[in-house]
Amino acid sequence: MDIAIPIFDGITALDAIGPYEVLSRLPEAHVHFIAKGPGPKRTGNGMLTLTADEALSDVPHPEVIVVPGGYGTRALMSDEELLGWLRSADETSRWTTSVCTGALLLGAAGLLDGLEATTHWRLLDKLPEFGATPVARRVVEQGKIITAAGVSSGIDMALTLAARVAGEEVARAIQLAIEYDPEPPFDSGSTAKASPETLELADRLT
Amino acid sequence: MDIAIPIFDGITALDAIGPYEVLSRLPEAHVHFIAKGPGPKRTGNGMLTLTADEALSDVPHPEVIVVPGGYGTRALMSDEELLGWLRSADETSRWTTSVCTGALLLGAAGLLDGLEATTHWRLLDKLPEFGATPVARRVVEQGKIITAAGVSSGIDMALTLAARVAGEEVARAIQLAIEYDPEPPFDSGSTAKASPETLELADRLT
Repeated sequence: MDIAIPIFDGITALDAIGPYEVLSRLPEAHVHFIAKGPGPKRTGNGMLTLTADEALSDVPHPEVIVVPGGYGTRALMSDEELLGWLRSADETSRWTTSVCTGALLLGAAGLLDGLEATTHWRLLDKLPEFGATPVARRVVEQGKIITAAGVSSGIDMALTLAARVAGEEVARAIQLAIEYDPEPPFDSGSTAKASPETLELADRLT
Repeated sequence: MDIAIPIFDGITALDAIGPYEVLSRLPEAHVHFIAKGPGPKRTGNGMLTLTADEALSDVPHPEVIVVPGGYGTRALMSDEELLGWLRSADETSRWTTSVCTGALLLGAAGLLDGLEATTHWRLLDKLPEFGATPVARRVVEQGKIITAAGVSSGIDMALTLAARVAGEEVARAIQLAIEYDPEPPFDSGSTAKASPETLELADRLT
């Protein structure tokens, strides 16, 4: 099963690596990191390089698409090569998904029109620009389109997707394989739970 | 603040990227991905390349060390260059930490002798070989040495560490910045919670 993750300069690494770590364990899965131009892609903070091994055109018909986010999505929202690939790949995909501001790219490609969707809490109010209804949930399923909230939510999205693709027993086994039994030391992971002070500080660290 | 993450062929990407995504948001943090030989490092499944920008010797005195795991740790457990770097860097670090089987490298370097420690559930019984007492907890703090359980537990470890380094308010803000409000769709992320069937299947997917 071909799983395509488009990456780009300015990516948020965990947006991509969370789902990758889950989905790469699906039976016969092959995760392809792809880009307009193959080669090294730098995270937004400049501290990490991930490599795109293949071009977008090398993987025209993946069964699963996962679009990660990051500051780099801004420049890509008018990039017809990427948006065209998303539209075309979505025509034959079984699942088209996003994490964090990857949803804005799905939106810019016209794939969220008329759907409920989510993204990072800071950008939720952008979704109506694409005809989408913002929903402050961690994972939003609308048929074959699944959007996830900010950064770390891609892990939950991918486990949900793994169950759809290969059944709940496999998804549970993957959860155990990556020992995903979260115990955050604090409870401020969503805007509904965080204090105003935490929210203001997070705005500067996002 | 210099944070060093040694990477290697056969790494499990999320072991490194979870903590990176948290710790890179600490004020004035600089995360260095380092290796014996700088350059591309391939994950154990062959699907992803992360790049080490610097050599071990380029970052001799990081304040924080995070050692990730993966199958590649097996070959490194007798690698005197890496183990020597770990011992030496630990002498001046404020915090020396591991995720998953990265604990076996800390152990091989002699840094877990007489301490409680954790690692991926499949390898917990290896820890006594290094004089460590295995503890089936997600994050185990022993003074400046902090070990985390399998793969995804590095996120929880890094939030705990972020609070030690920069205070709880900053750690809470980072949790919100990466929207870490986990909602796993199943509850089989630890051996205590998973069924025998899930455990057997996970053993093949780990």
